[in-house]
Amino acid sequence: MTMTDLKRHIVDVPDFPRPGILFRDITPLLRRHFDATLEAMDGLFSDQEWQQIDALGGIESRGFILAAGLAARRHKGFVLIRKQGKLPPPVVSAAYELEYGNAVLEVRSGGGRLALIDDVLATGGTMRAAADLATLAGYQVLGLAALIDLRLAGDFIWHELPLRRVIRYD
Amino acid sequence: MTMTDLKRHIVDVPDFPRPGILFRDITPLLRRHFDATLEAMDGLFSDQEWQQIDALGGIESRGFILAAGLAARRHKGFVLIRKQGKLPPPVVSAAYELEYGNAVLEVRSGGGRLALIDDVLATGGTMRAAADLATLAGYQVLGLAALIDLRLAGDFIWHELPLRRVIRYD
Repeated sequence: MTMTDLKRHIVDVPDFPRPGILFRDITPLLRRHFDATLEAMDGLFSDQEWQQIDALGGIESRGFILAAGLAARRHKGFVLIRKQGKLPPPVVSAAYELEYGNAVLEVRSGGGRLALIDDVLATGGTMRAAADLATLAGYQVLGLAALIDLRLAGDFIWHELPLRRVIRYD
Repeated sequence: MTMTDLKRHIVDVPDFPRPGILFRDITPLLRRHFDATLEAMDGLFSDQEWQQIDALGGIESRGFILAAGLAARRHKGFVLIRKQGKLPPPVVSAAYELEYGNAVLEVRSGGGRLALIDDVLATGGTMRAAADLATLAGYQVLGLAALIDLRLAGDFIWHELPLRRVIRYD
C-alpha cells in the first residue's frame, strides 16, 4: 500500500488528548491493514541493514505493537523501552522533557544492535531519550523508525542517524 | 523450545510491583527468544483455528507485544484493548475489579473474529473484562491465550472458552 492508501485509514481526532492537539488515530489502520503497515515499515531498512539488527526496541506502548510485528517478521529479539515504574529492577533510567512536563523512560541493560521503533514522532523528544537510554544501557543503536512523522521540529536526526518513516504530515 | 527452556529465561523478581508479589519478568526471554516464544504461542491454536481468526486483540501493554508478534506471523489484523483514557473517542468501556482496586478497559467498536492475547494471566479478571468488552464492542471472541498462567484462581474459562497458555506456574 502507498503512503496515501495507508493515510486513508488513519482517523484525525481533534482536541485529543487535550484541546488544540490533532490526534492521528492509527487503530483503524492496524485493525484492517496491520500486515501492510508492517510491510511498509519493514521496507524502511534494507535487507543488509536488517541482517545487522539483533533486536527491535519498542517504545511503550504503541511502539510495542509495531516493533513486535517487525521483530516477528524478521525473527529478531524484542527489547521493551518503558515508562517509569513498569519494569522490575534492575533498570537503567533517563529523564527527558515533553511538550507538557517531564517523563522518564527505562530499559533493562543488555547488549547487541537495536533499531528503535515508535508509532508517531512529534518533537522527537521521546525517540531521542530512548536512543540515549539504550546506548547508556549497553545497546548499539543502528536505526530509528516511526510509522508517522509529524515533523513538529523539522527533520529528526540523532547522532547522524536520520529517522526513517512511512508517513509524513507536513 | 519446551516450556522448561522458555521458563529458564524468565526472571523471578520478589516484591514487585508491591511487597508480597512475585513478578515473573519476561523481558530477558523476549530479548533473546522472541521468535521461539511466538512459535510456542502460535501452536496454542490449530491451523484451522487460525484461519477463522480475523485479528488479534492485544491487552495493554505487554499483551500488545505478543499479540502483535502473532498477528505479524499469521497476517492478521490488530485490535488495541487499552487502559482508560488512552484511546481517542469513540470507545466502548468496561469497568472491572482487580486484586487491588478497580480498572477500566476500552476498545474501539468493530467487528470480526478475535483471539485475545495477554502476557500473564493471574486471577483472570483482566482477560474476562477484555472478552466481555470485545463482545460488547461488536467482536466475536473465538479464543483466549496467555504466555504465562499463574493459576491464581484455578482453571480459567470464559463462556466455555478455556485459556490456552504456554507456561504454567502451579
